Amino acid sequence: MPAPIDPADLTARLIRCPSVTPEEGGALGLLQEMLEEAGFDCTRVPRGGIDNLFARWGDRGAAKSFGFNGHTDVVPVGNRDDWSFDPFGAEEKDGQLYGRGACDMKSGVAAFAAAAIDFVRTTPPEGAVILTITGDEEGDGIDGTAALLDWMDETGEKMDVCLVGEPTCPETFGEMIKIGRRGSMNAHLTVTGTQGHSAYPHRANNPIPAMARLVDRLSSHELDQGTEHFDASTLAVVTIDTGNPATNVIPRQCRATLNIRFNDLHSGASLTEWLQAETRWVTEEFGVGIDMQVKVSGEAFLTPPGRLSQLVSQAVEAETGTLPVLSTTGGTSDARFVKAHCPVVEFGLVGQTMHQVDERVEVDQIHRLKSVYGRILKDYFA
Amino acid sequence: MPAPIDPADLTARLIRCPSVTPEEGGALGLLQEMLEEAGFDCTRVPRGGIDNLFARWGDRGAAKSFGFNGHTDVVPVGNRDDWSFDPFGAEEKDGQLYGRGACDMKSGVAAFAAAAIDFVRTTPPEGAVILTITGDEEGDGIDGTAALLDWMDETGEKMDVCLVGEPTCPETFGEMIKIGRRGSMNAHLTVTGTQGHSAYPHRANNPIPAMARLVDRLSSHELDQGTEHFDASTLAVVTIDTGNPATNVIPRQCRATLNIRFNDLHSGASLTEWLQAETRWVTEEFGVGIDMQVKVSGEAFLTPPGRLSQLVSQAVEAETGTLPVLSTTGGTSDARFVKAHCPVVEFGLVGQTMHQVDERVEVDQIHRLKSVYGRILKDYFA
Repeated sequence: MPAPIDPADLTARLIRCPSVTPEEGGALGLLQEMLEEAGFDCTRVPRGGIDNLFARWGDRGAAKSFGFNGHTDVVPVGNRDDWSFDPFGAEEKDGQLYGRGACDMKSGVAAFAAAAIDFVRTTPPEGAVILTITGDEEGDGIDGTAALLDWMDETGEKMDVCLVGEPTCPETFGEMIKIGRRGSMNAHLTVTGTQGHSAYPHRANNPIPAMARLVDRLSSHELDQGTEHFDASTLAVVTIDTGNPATNVIPRQCRATLNIRFNDLHSGASLTEWLQAETRWVTEEFGVGIDMQVKVSGEAFLTPPGRLSQLVSQAVEAETGTLPVLSTTGGTSDARFVKAHCPVVEFGLVGQTMHQVDERVEVDQIHRLKSVYGRILKDYFA
Repeated sequence: MPAPIDPADLTARLIRCPSVTPEEGGALGLLQEMLEEAGFDCTRVPRGGIDNLFARWGDRGAAKSFGFNGHTDVVPVGNRDDWSFDPFGAEEKDGQLYGRGACDMKSGVAAFAAAAIDFVRTTPPEGAVILTITGDEEGDGIDGTAALLDWMDETGEKMDVCLVGEPTCPETFGEMIKIGRRGSMNAHLTVTGTQGHSAYPHRANNPIPAMARLVDRLSSHELDQGTEHFDASTLAVVTIDTGNPATNVIPRQCRATLNIRFNDLHSGASLTEWLQAETRWVTEEFGVGIDMQVKVSGEAFLTPPGRLSQLVSQAVEAETGTLPVLSTTGGTSDARFVKAHCPVVEFGLVGQTMHQVDERVEVDQIHRLKSVYGRILKDYFA
């Protein structure tokens, strides 16, 4: 029997692969080698210049299958000189492992890969353990998890449930599981009137009062009061700009940008429709032109509390002594794609230095995360 | 009997005096010499680095006195290379005289000085003809006409009526007399809230909805519907700016500037009070801070239609064939100071190139303006 996999050592080896999106950087190759050695069937699924790895232990048509999802691609390092350590050096100091991807999320991938390998070696389950590891989470996401799930549908591969290993804990390890996420969208508004002299406003059509009324209406509107598992949806107008330095000139245009974080009562389409109706109203009321560009970066999704979240909660509590809260807060993740395939929850470590200079992870937390993932597998197949 | 004064030649000689505020540039000296030669009592009234000229023909305590007011200071030339002619060269081409101050308002001063000199020489009136010519109209105005009027009060000098020789005609010579002006003020507003993440707006206090509500309230408010001699007062919000490039950040501050042109139903103080009440309401409603900086550049003033405007109208119609309209439109002028001293109206030539590159005046119009001023003097003392 081979020795257990050290997830901190594996994290360090993954950090040393310079896998800034879209580069594979050797990270998937390293994982594939270890997984194949442990008896996993591995398939590379390259799409649009992105490489992805599908790994299955057990039969394709197994009665029970548990999936993990994660990514090995990382965001750029930014200004290299701002770092105290080599971003691809995986140096360890005072119990912290430093490097790009240390917490988002090479440690998560290392922890579930190590847990999965040890599990199938020590207690081979009646069923399948599946790993979906992609290289496009920090990019558009389209050629990563979304493409890999399409390929699985086409080839008859299936996960019954899935756990995404993204960092989920705000401050203390074990305190939070994500069972869904609010959606997010931006709208860029440009109101166009007619320029003129401010002494003769009747000869001009100032876009600013129209913009003010629109912003007031949108900001005053209560989208909802929250739902059972979601906070209330929020709309924030983050900027209004005109750039007119002359007090005797009525400007021609005024621009604004707003961000909406929405729960499961809405969709990007339903909110776009509402915004369009509001802009139409203002257009007619003020005789101005309004251009609106909408970008929906993610829809709201939820895996209602049930067997999967209970399984993960119990394992977290058993290993950490903390009963995690089931949350839908924060930004979006690849769980938004997995949701269409099977029930999905997210659990990982504390993510405070994600995307930052001197990104780092507590070495001990990687070991604890592997233990949680191992217990989840054991309980699932028990 | 000396020959009549050529007002176009005098305009050219004045243009050649580089009298950009606060420089006297020789302009007042030139006028003083000519006026003294024609029997005017002249006094220089220097104040705060500005030179001013008071000239009276006739006795100080005369039963009747007619005053002219104007300025010889000019605005800077801007970029010299943009000019087709020397801005201080007074070159003539195709019937146009070019130079800084050609229309604002060395031609006006030349026309009334020439008319006054010819008038007292040919038909010495029973009364006084007074010229108040200043060097601070393009500056703050405080050390020019305002100071000269204070000096007149102190020394017992008095005009019964006054005509300001500023350009007043939008397009055709003779079409418009100004009997008053709307007031003008600017307000600079800064709304301060609390910065935060746009996914968690309840932890921040976005200044933008408060600004939008304030701008909407101010823009929607009808200040009045106009008065007998004034257009309706107008309020124009000319810019709103935030400068926040990040859609996931709620900004701390938002700024706006508004311009109010107000008639005789309001004052700078009454409007400031109204704005303060509105900002207080929004402060309390939204829990934000609002800073407001107000600058009143001129109060509204009016010389109601009567003997003076009738006198000027009839003279304009007799000389030009056009019955001028009595207007209160446009920006402000030194008439706002004269108003406190005696009834005042304004009449001058077409001012389309005021403050512009290649400022110019039709030579023929200077002669016609002198004729109008001459007829006004003749009719007044008839």
